[in-house]
Amino acid sequence: MAEWVEIVKGLKGVVLDICGVLYDSGEGGGVPIPGSIEAVKRIKSSGLKLRFCTNETQATREKFVCKLQRLGFDISIDEVFAPAPAVCRILNDRGLRPHLLVHDDVIPEFDGIEKSSPNCVVLGDAADNFSYRNLNEAFNVLISLENPVLFALGRGRYYKETDGLKLDVGVYMKALEYACDIEAEVVGKPAKMFFMSALADMGIEPQQAIMIGDDLVNDVGGAQQCGMKALQVRTGKYRPTDELHPTVKADLYVNNLAEAVDNILRALGK
Amino acid sequence: MAEWVEIVKGLKGVVLDICGVLYDSGEGGGVPIPGSIEAVKRIKSSGLKLRFCTNETQATREKFVCKLQRLGFDISIDEVFAPAPAVCRILNDRGLRPHLLVHDDVIPEFDGIEKSSPNCVVLGDAADNFSYRNLNEAFNVLISLENPVLFALGRGRYYKETDGLKLDVGVYMKALEYACDIEAEVVGKPAKMFFMSALADMGIEPQQAIMIGDDLVNDVGGAQQCGMKALQVRTGKYRPTDELHPTVKADLYVNNLAEAVDNILRALGK
Repeated sequence: MAEWVEIVKGLKGVVLDICGVLYDSGEGGGVPIPGSIEAVKRIKSSGLKLRFCTNETQATREKFVCKLQRLGFDISIDEVFAPAPAVCRILNDRGLRPHLLVHDDVIPEFDGIEKSSPNCVVLGDAADNFSYRNLNEAFNVLISLENPVLFALGRGRYYKETDGLKLDVGVYMKALEYACDIEAEVVGKPAKMFFMSALADMGIEPQQAIMIGDDLVNDVGGAQQCGMKALQVRTGKYRPTDELHPTVKADLYVNNLAEAVDNILRALGK
Repeated sequence: MAEWVEIVKGLKGVVLDICGVLYDSGEGGGVPIPGSIEAVKRIKSSGLKLRFCTNETQATREKFVCKLQRLGFDISIDEVFAPAPAVCRILNDRGLRPHLLVHDDVIPEFDGIEKSSPNCVVLGDAADNFSYRNLNEAFNVLISLENPVLFALGRGRYYKETDGLKLDVGVYMKALEYACDIEAEVVGKPAKMFFMSALADMGIEPQQAIMIGDDLVNDVGGAQQCGMKALQVRTGKYRPTDELHPTVKADLYVNNLAEAVDNILRALGK
């Protein structure tokens, strides 16, 4: 218990990853991870602030949140930080017109964005849209630009669906980086700006927040780089070898979200 | 002319890349690059030895050579070094059973190889077979192995077809390397062993040979690493920025194979 008392010192808010922490995605919308629905409710009723930081780019935030609500989660759109709305702000600020290589279901997020004569590429978790033809098309846009600009909505390696591990956007980011000899700009976890926007929305400092995620590098490592504490859950894409990682180490490892919330609230005396 | 006299000093053999040097590939089999058919004939009748080193993995060597013969080239199977036969020797030597992510047309090269319960992945230029589904399948084979072994048949970034630039096997190698946090073993150019096997077949030393290719890094850089001289032709995937490359510099740049052969034979007094 002593380590939990240390962890919750000054704690005012919690940031949760979604996929692999709240639920496992897959055919038919996925399934909640046991105890997670209740755990989210308990955080909210404890008085702690709560935001969700996801690299989900297979749906609009609206549809994604609806799906989670149907699964039973107490969650609303304005609590969710996702890469697609974040990159739209950047595109507007810099006057960039994207060629999109993204999942069909996230395209409505880009409705208000000018896309003719593209001068950059936005790469999301396009799943089956990652065909040879589509990757060639994105490549040809980039290689024809004098200064190729590639935005990657996350840099994850893979995620877990109910029928197995699936390659994530980071893998295709590396592919295009190598093809064009460029470096992508990552929007989403583990980018510091992404975590900071969630903290700013809660009005708290990094050292007053805990991140809970299943991705050691992007959730745990990214949050720690910002000055937050971070826990890794042994659900979702977690693999036992994560606990032997040479450079990234969670503040604590827990079996699942429910166990993390149990311990946090007990250590806070709630 | 002085630089050509320097280049041909002690010259006994020539190694040619094929795609982008002899012909441009594309729909319907491709088209010869003007002057190349004649240039191959002139090398052969000069008494210089000649071998072809290709990273082509979209066809068996047999079919590929037939296609080149139909285009008009004087070329035979035993003059051609290609990655698929080379990796088959390695698989046999090390008792490895591959999962193949390759072009349908090169699969017959692997006829004699045991492929059940795969314990490695062989990645070729699979073109349209580079679907999300197939890349996931190769990834799941690798990630389930205790010691994932990935062979890449080349590490090229892209090549030119008659309808534009196409992503090459190296791009997907980088994708799987990142997904699994491993390093691939490259079979084909620029691997030193690959050039050496062609030189051994001619019975000559590296400093007695010139490589002529359109790929600065894989043809020119790879051959120079072996101690060969190397020319880059301004055909195929050549781009003017190649001549400004920070680390790889061809011994000479020429407009095309015909110009290279003209100069070589003239400098030799033939």
